[in-house]
Amino acid sequence: MSRLVFKRLSSTVTIKSTPSKAHHHQPIPSSSFPSGYLLTGLHAGVKKKAGVLDVGIILSTSERPTSAAACFTRNAFKAAPVVISEQILGENVGRARAVVVNSGCANAVTGAQGIEDAWAMAKETDVLLPANSSASSYTTSQTLVMSTGVIGQNLPISKILSAIRSQRDGNSQTLGSDFDAWERAAKAFMTTDTFPKLRARKFNINGVEYRMAGMDKGAGMIHPDMGPPALGPLHATLLGCIMTDAAISPRSLQRALTYAVERSFNSISVDGDMSTNDTILLLANGAAAEKNGIKQEEIDEETDKEAFEVFKKELTDFTIDLAKLVVRDGEGATKFVTVTVKGAPTYEDAHRIASRISTSALVKTALYGEDANWGRVLAATGSVPLSSPLHPNKVSVTFVPSDGTTALPVLVNGEPEKVDEERASEILALEDFEILVDLGGEGAEAAQYWTCDFSYEYVRINGDYRS
Amino acid sequence: MSRLVFKRLSSTVTIKSTPSKAHHHQPIPSSSFPSGYLLTGLHAGVKKKAGVLDVGIILSTSERPTSAAACFTRNAFKAAPVVISEQILGENVGRARAVVVNSGCANAVTGAQGIEDAWAMAKETDVLLPANSSASSYTTSQTLVMSTGVIGQNLPISKILSAIRSQRDGNSQTLGSDFDAWERAAKAFMTTDTFPKLRARKFNINGVEYRMAGMDKGAGMIHPDMGPPALGPLHATLLGCIMTDAAISPRSLQRALTYAVERSFNSISVDGDMSTNDTILLLANGAAAEKNGIKQEEIDEETDKEAFEVFKKELTDFTIDLAKLVVRDGEGATKFVTVTVKGAPTYEDAHRIASRISTSALVKTALYGEDANWGRVLAATGSVPLSSPLHPNKVSVTFVPSDGTTALPVLVNGEPEKVDEERASEILALEDFEILVDLGGEGAEAAQYWTCDFSYEYVRINGDYRS
Repeated sequence: MSRLVFKRLSSTVTIKSTPSKAHHHQPIPSSSFPSGYLLTGLHAGVKKKAGVLDVGIILSTSERPTSAAACFTRNAFKAAPVVISEQILGENVGRARAVVVNSGCANAVTGAQGIEDAWAMAKETDVLLPANSSASSYTTSQTLVMSTGVIGQNLPISKILSAIRSQRDGNSQTLGSDFDAWERAAKAFMTTDTFPKLRARKFNINGVEYRMAGMDKGAGMIHPDMGPPALGPLHATLLGCIMTDAAISPRSLQRALTYAVERSFNSISVDGDMSTNDTILLLANGAAAEKNGIKQEEIDEETDKEAFEVFKKELTDFTIDLAKLVVRDGEGATKFVTVTVKGAPTYEDAHRIASRISTSALVKTALYGEDANWGRVLAATGSVPLSSPLHPNKVSVTFVPSDGTTALPVLVNGEPEKVDEERASEILALEDFEILVDLGGEGAEAAQYWTCDFSYEYVRINGDYRS
Repeated sequence: MSRLVFKRLSSTVTIKSTPSKAHHHQPIPSSSFPSGYLLTGLHAGVKKKAGVLDVGIILSTSERPTSAAACFTRNAFKAAPVVISEQILGENVGRARAVVVNSGCANAVTGAQGIEDAWAMAKETDVLLPANSSASSYTTSQTLVMSTGVIGQNLPISKILSAIRSQRDGNSQTLGSDFDAWERAAKAFMTTDTFPKLRARKFNINGVEYRMAGMDKGAGMIHPDMGPPALGPLHATLLGCIMTDAAISPRSLQRALTYAVERSFNSISVDGDMSTNDTILLLANGAAAEKNGIKQEEIDEETDKEAFEVFKKELTDFTIDLAKLVVRDGEGATKFVTVTVKGAPTYEDAHRIASRISTSALVKTALYGEDANWGRVLAATGSVPLSSPLHPNKVSVTFVPSDGTTALPVLVNGEPEKVDEERASEILALEDFEILVDLGGEGAEAAQYWTCDFSYEYVRINGDYRS
């Protein structure tokens, strides 16, 4: 990690350069992606720079009806794409077989024009879908819409519609199912992200192999609190889209996603700000069964609890992987820190404390400064109202390195340890480490959060975002 | 405001130097201070630098019993001085006539030794109090204690006790009642503050002139949420001490302070972090009546509601003045921003939204960048759960300059205005301005918050605090 030093009036400021994160994006064998999806990423011109991808399209080509689930921001100012996607999912009773996304403009706080533009994106994408037997499952548009970027500006809609329309024509069509196609779609999600976030995994249920792949984007305005559709107010600009070739009933798909999102995307923070656009979508098209010639019923929690639990577990692990990538690439982040709170009376108490530590500006600047300032961790912990009182003299704080070397207790049962500052510096100098807070209570509940540090680079990016 | 520009890898970062705030500290005529108080500030050596004041002493010399009220942090990890001050106030049933403060070390998370040290500071200060007829009002120590600085380190207690003891001896005594003495005490409160925060005001009740003066300190870990003693958990390192020569009953004094603190110190934010040490003390020694030869009863809400209301109003205005100074001098702050939320269903709803806007890292970095990014204001507004739903199409946002020129509406009834960017830049370039959010609801409740921006300087100060 290189450092630049400059004199600032009477004080010297050291700016650490953000380490390159490019190695977190690696090729994935095309055979690892789920069957029955076509994708692409296009340059429509929402972003000015030539060639930069800003519109992504994902189509399910399965003959079976595709189940769809979503978690949307709880922000009261829901962006137009959130409003219409929620409506489409509702009218189709949990079915959708396409996703269209644009980056560069959030289509948020854009009034009636914004709603019209979001519908136009959905309908233009519908035209690209293969006419097959599944089409009868939809009463309205079959496409869910996502947008991310600046708030309060209208989309350059004709540019976006032209880009989508280009995919009708065999000559200009770039839709595909290989790594290149998935990667292009992932790139179209990016705003201040420094690398595309794309992952894939395989899993087995009842002897059948399924696949799951997904992409997300984050970087700033990241402190999601998302719930299932129409379950009240929500928040952040986090966008994610996960596709699987398993067959799951819409109801069970939503239940699995809601559970997974709480433990993944709702447990990360870059800057504590909740967006108007946060959306996580999940499509399940059943194409694996189709490919294998199996006449499989959709998995449902009520009829096959065991299969459902396997799916839920796989999905949760996968969403945690995707969520961590967002923190890893947080705006200006130089650290990736896991905050674990245990010994809490309830999961919610543990989650609230982990969230508070993860969003504390003082903790995050100390992480940037590689300062083992556990006092700030403790002050954040103590500021959270809990369901039952915390006992200060039972609380322990430990810094756990990611390299497998010995952990460093800094507070044990409320008493500060004599901290080996050299050892503390070694751990804090790592890119990855864990802050473990044990409340020492009788409760055995625990929660984890993933956060990054607060750097000069964060201020630079966000002090001058629109220009 | 000067700017320094330097190349940072491929990007250029402009660092604005923090404007000097020295002009916010001005001499106050000695005749403006309340009667019956002696003060000093000493260098004990808690802070290493020679001559820097780090211990302050405030004594009430009134013959009448002195009433005392306090609001303490709600943090679960209350520092030792908070614990013992709460105990002393309880045992003396709202009486105390001295305050001792040290800066440089918070005496927080310091176990049994910390409690012992805090008691030692109180008892050493008791010895300095004049033996007079009021002494019989106290069953325990007559001194309240405050500490601020690093968490988790023990006080250099013998140095502090020596410094206090120096005031027993006429030759080394520096206690006084003029501006110089008040200023020295105010300086002893400072940590990363760039100027001492001292204010005084006069007021009349029932034809008698009273005076009130006070000092506070803040800078970082400022997002107080304080309540009256023993009313449950609290939070921030904000310290403040207000002295008046009015005579008020302990019960009414506490009630007035609790009301005032909610609308002043609990309505400011520098960084959203709540401290283990936050304390606001208020002494009322009745010396004005004594000086004027009036045999006045203590003012009490039950027996003289009108007089009480006048006092409460004066105190609230005064605490708002003191609280604003803390924001003005927030760590790295280059802006002083008033956030007003109106048209809310309840005061609590308005206060919650104002707080959320005031703590948003994205709003605060945009303020630093002088970017009229109202989208971030809106996203913060929408992320707060309210007692009744917010109607996005009724919400308006206006930037109001402090120089009396025309305000700039950026959102009117949920529709973005065509913003004159040049005019926006003019307003955002001011040091002081207001963000006005009108929820447009049927409720007429309003709340104000005062906040500052998030700068490179904030990251510098807090990325490297302990060293």
